[in-house]
Amino acid sequence: MPVSLGELAVRFGCELHGDPDALVDRVATLQDAVPGAVAFLANPKYRKHLPGTRASAVVLDAASLGHCQTHALVAANPYATYARIAQHLNPEPSFAGGRHPTAVVEPSTTVDPTAWIGPHCYVGAGSVIGPGAYLGPATVLFEGVSIGARSRCAARVTLCAHVRIGERCLLHPGVVIGADGFGHAPDTDGYVKVPQLGAVTVGDDVEIGANTTIDRGAIEDTVIEHGVKIDNQVQIGHNCRIGEHTVIAGCAGISGSVTIGKRCMIGGMVGFVGHLEVCDDVYLTGKTMVTGSITKPGLYSGQLPFDEARRFRRNSARFQKLDELAQRVARLERAGRKNDEPGPD
Amino acid sequence: MPVSLGELAVRFGCELHGDPDALVDRVATLQDAVPGAVAFLANPKYRKHLPGTRASAVVLDAASLGHCQTHALVAANPYATYARIAQHLNPEPSFAGGRHPTAVVEPSTTVDPTAWIGPHCYVGAGSVIGPGAYLGPATVLFEGVSIGARSRCAARVTLCAHVRIGERCLLHPGVVIGADGFGHAPDTDGYVKVPQLGAVTVGDDVEIGANTTIDRGAIEDTVIEHGVKIDNQVQIGHNCRIGEHTVIAGCAGISGSVTIGKRCMIGGMVGFVGHLEVCDDVYLTGKTMVTGSITKPGLYSGQLPFDEARRFRRNSARFQKLDELAQRVARLERAGRKNDEPGPD
Amino acid sequence: MPVSLGELAVRFGCELHGDPDALVDRVATLQDAVPGAVAFLANPKYRKHLPGTRASAVVLDAASLGHCQTHALVAANPYATYARIAQHLNPEPSFAGGRHPTAVVEPSTTVDPTAWIGPHCYVGAGSVIGPGAYLGPATVLFEGVSIGARSRCAARVTLCAHVRIGERCLLHPGVVIGADGFGHAPDTDGYVKVPQLGAVTVGDDVEIGANTTIDRGAIEDTVIEHGVKIDNQVQIGHNCRIGEHTVIAGCAGISGSVTIGKRCMIGGMVGFVGHLEVCDDVYLTGKTMVTGSITKPGLYSGQLPFDEARRFRRNSARFQKLDELAQRVARLERAGRKNDEPGPD
Repeated sequence: MPVSLGELAVRFGCELHGDPDALVDRVATLQDAVPGAVAFLANPKYRKHLPGTRASAVVLDAASLGHCQTHALVAANPYATYARIAQHLNPEPSFAGGRHPTAVVEPSTTVDPTAWIGPHCYVGAGSVIGPGAYLGPATVLFEGVSIGARSRCAARVTLCAHVRIGERCLLHPGVVIGADGFGHAPDTDGYVKVPQLGAVTVGDDVEIGANTTIDRGAIEDTVIEHGVKIDNQVQIGHNCRIGEHTVIAGCAGISGSVTIGKRCMIGGMVGFVGHLEVCDDVYLTGKTMVTGSITKPGLYSGQLPFDEARRFRRNSARFQKLDELAQRVARLERAGRKNDEPGPD
Repeated sequence: MPVSLGELAVRFGCELHGDPDALVDRVATLQDAVPGAVAFLANPKYRKHLPGTRASAVVLDAASLGHCQTHALVAANPYATYARIAQHLNPEPSFAGGRHPTAVVEPSTTVDPTAWIGPHCYVGAGSVIGPGAYLGPATVLFEGVSIGARSRCAARVTLCAHVRIGERCLLHPGVVIGADGFGHAPDTDGYVKVPQLGAVTVGDDVEIGANTTIDRGAIEDTVIEHGVKIDNQVQIGHNCRIGEHTVIAGCAGISGSVTIGKRCMIGGMVGFVGHLEVCDDVYLTGKTMVTGSITKPGLYSGQLPFDEARRFRRNSARFQKLDELAQRVARLERAGRKNDEPGPD
Repeated sequence: MPVSLGELAVRFGCELHGDPDALVDRVATLQDAVPGAVAFLANPKYRKHLPGTRASAVVLDAASLGHCQTHALVAANPYATYARIAQHLNPEPSFAGGRHPTAVVEPSTTVDPTAWIGPHCYVGAGSVIGPGAYLGPATVLFEGVSIGARSRCAARVTLCAHVRIGERCLLHPGVVIGADGFGHAPDTDGYVKVPQLGAVTVGDDVEIGANTTIDRGAIEDTVIEHGVKIDNQVQIGHNCRIGEHTVIAGCAGISGSVTIGKRCMIGGMVGFVGHLEVCDDVYLTGKTMVTGSITKPGLYSGQLPFDEARRFRRNSARFQKLDELAQRVARLERAGRKNDEPGPD
C-alpha cells in the first residue's frame, strides 16, 4: 500500500521539499534504504549517511535539510514523525473478535464481542475484557481481571487476581502482573507469610516488556500511571507508584513502596532501596543504586565506569583503604600548616 | 466473616486492650483503615499515623500502646502477628481435587485425588503430586517431578525433569526450576555442552517469586533448603545450596556452585562469583558483588551510593587514578619525613 | 548401557592407563563417585580428591596422571573430553515426529514429519519447522517463524513473528525472542511508539537460557551468530549483534545497537550502554558496566569488591569527596615544591 509523500506531509504536518507524488511503502535506515523507502535522520552523528542514501525520502529537521539530496519531509521532531509514518505504513494486523476453541473462559466473565481470546488462553471468573482487546496465545488471567479497550497481551502474559489494565496498553510475552509482593515477617522460627491483599492498577497507554514482573500491593494497589513505558525484565515491587510518562529501561529493579514521579527516565539495571520517593523529572544513568529519596530534578549516577582489569583492581585496592588515605592527607595538611607557622627559632 | 477481637487475642496470643466483642473483618494500613479494619504498627516511623487512624483495632507492641486511641492487640512481634491475623481473615480459596479437562496428564503419574491440575497444564510421566497440591493454569511438569502436600504452582510454572518440590511451597508465575545449568567446555572450535545430569531439590515452606530461575545441577542436585524465601527474577546457578530460612531479594544472581548458609539476607541485585561459600547469618546490602567467600557473620556492602551525575563523574575520574594518587600521597609523606629529619645544615 | 574404557578411549581420543575391559555406565564427581562411574579432574584445586575417589576411571591430563590410583583416561582437554563422554553415556531421549492432539498448528505451516510439536503448543501461519526439531509443552510460535534441524525448545518458549532459529539450538523454558525492542520517541505529550519492524536471526549451535529475552530489531534484524551460549535471564536489546562463540553469563543486560565480537566472555550481571562496539576476545568480569566501546582484546572490570559494611561506607563517604581530596593532594605537592625551591632567605 504505497503512500505519496504529499499525503504523508499533510497527515503528519511536515514541510515537503520534493515531489508530492513520489511513493513510499516502507521505512528503512539511511544506509540500507532502497528506492521506495522513507528513512529518517534524528541523531546528527548519522548525518554522514545522508548524501549516499538511496531512500526516496528522508524525515529530518530544518538544520539538516541542506545536506539532503533526495525528497525531504521536514519536521520539528523527526524521530516522532518517523515513528508515526512507520506506524502508518505498518498497521497492526486487524483481527476478528471471538475466541479460539482451545481457550478456556470461565462463566460470569464479560468479554466484548470485538475482543479476541487466543489459543490456550485462560480467563478467570469475573474478568472483564474490553472492546478490541487482544489476548495472544497462552495468556492467563486469574479471576476478576479487567483489560481496557484495545489493550493487547502479546502471548503468555499472566495477570493475577483483580489486576486492572487500562486502555491501549501493550504487554509483551512473559509479563507477570500481580504476583504476591515479597512480604515475610521474621518470627522466632523462620518467617510468616504476609498476605498480599492489594492488586495492581495499570493506566492507559502503558507498554510493559517481556518477562517484566510487577507485584501486587500488600494492602493497597501497586500503581502504574498513564503512559509509563517499561522495558524487558524489569522488577517492580509491591506498593510502588510509577508516575505518568516515566520510562524504565531493561533489568531495572524497584524495591517495595517506592514512589517515582512523572517523566523520569530510569536507566538499565538501576536499583532502588525500598520506601523511597523520587520527584518528577529525574534521570538515572545505568546501574545506579538509588539509596535515598531524590527531591530535586536532574541527572544522577552511581556506577563506576569500567577499565582494564589490572588498573581497575589496583584502584579498587586503594579504594578499600580510601578512608585511611584521606586521614593521611589530613595529617600532611596539618604538618604543612605547622611548618608554615611562625616557629620559635 | 467478621471475627471478634477477643477471638483474635486468644488465637494469636495478644494482650487485648479494648472491647473483646468488637468485630473486624479486614486488614488495612493505619492511614486508610475504616471501621471494621485491623491495622498494625511495626515500624516506629509510622507511629504518627496512630492518633488519626479509623481502624477498629491496631496490632502493636507494648511501647506503642500509650499512643493508641482505639482497641489494641499488644504483641511481642506485631508484624508477625499482623501477618497471622491477615491470613486468618483472608484464607486461601479452597478447591476441589481433580483436573481440568484441558490438562494433559501422562500415564504412570501419581496424582493425589485432593490435588488440582488446572487448565492447559502438562504433567509428565512418572510425576507424583501430593495431597492438596495445586497446579495453576499452564503449569508444565516434565517427567519424574514430585510436588509435596499442599504446595502450589500459581500459574505458568515450569518444573523440569526430576525436580522435587517439598510441602507447603508457593511458586509464582513464570518460575523455571531445573533448566540446564550453564556448562560449556571450551574446545578448539567453540564449546562442548556439558550435560546437566543433576536435578533440583526444594525443601518445605519455600516461596519462589515470579520469573525466578533455578538451574539443575551438573552431576549432583542444586539444593534449596527448608523455609527459604526467594523474590522475583532471582537466578540461581547449578550446584548451589541455599541454607534454611535464607531470604533472597529480587534480581539477585547466584553463580554456580555457591553455598550460602542459614538465615542469610541477600539484598536485591546482589551478585556472587561462582564456587564461593557464605557462612550463616550474613547480610548483604543491595547490588553488592560478592567476590570471595565469607566466613564471619555480619553485614557486608559493595555498591557506591548514588550522587548528582556531575559530581559522581568527577569523583569517578579521580577513582581511575586512585592508585597514582595514593603513590603521590606516599611521596609527600616521605618528603615530609625527610624534612623532619635532622639535616646536615 | 555400560561402555568399556577401551571404547571410550578410542571414541574420544584418550590415552588409556588401565583395563580396557573395565565398564562404566555413568559420570560422577571425584568425591561422590561409586564403582562404575567415570569422574574427571580439570581444575588442579580438586586434585586432593583424586587419591580417595571410588570412580572406576578418571579423565585427566598427563600432569595429574601420577596422582591417579584407578584407571585413567588421559586427554589434552579433560573437561571437554568429560563433556563428550557424559553426552555419550546420557544421550538425549529420542522422540517420534508428530504433534500432540492439544497442539494448535495454523494452516500453511511446513512441519517436517520428524519434528515434534508438543502439548499446548501454538504454531503460527507460515512457520517452518525443520527435521528433528522439538517443541516442548506450551511453546508459542507467532507467524513466519523458522526453526532449523534438530533445534529444541524445551518448554514455554515464545518466538515472535519471523524469528529465525538455526540448527541444533537449545532454547530453555521462558525464553522470549522477538518481542518489540524498546523504542519510544519523546513527543510533546508523552511518547510515540516506534514500530519494531526487524526480526531476530539466531545462528546454529546457540544455547539460550531460561527466561532470557532477545528483542527484535527496529528496522533490521537483531543477530546472534553461530555458537553463542547465553545463560539465564539475559536481556539483549534491539539491533544488537553478538559474535560467534561469545559466552554471556546470567543476568547480563545488553542495551540496543551494541555489537559484540567473537569469542568474548561476558560475566554475570554485566551491563552495556547502548550503541557501543566491543571487539573480539574481550573478557568482562561480573557486574561491570561497559560505558564505552572496547577496541583492544583483554580483561576489563568495573565493579568494586565487597567489604564489611562499616568499612565500605566509610570509604564510600570518602569517595564522594574524592575530587576534593585529589585537589588537596595537588595543593600539598605545590606547597612542597615551593618549600624545596631556593628561597629568598
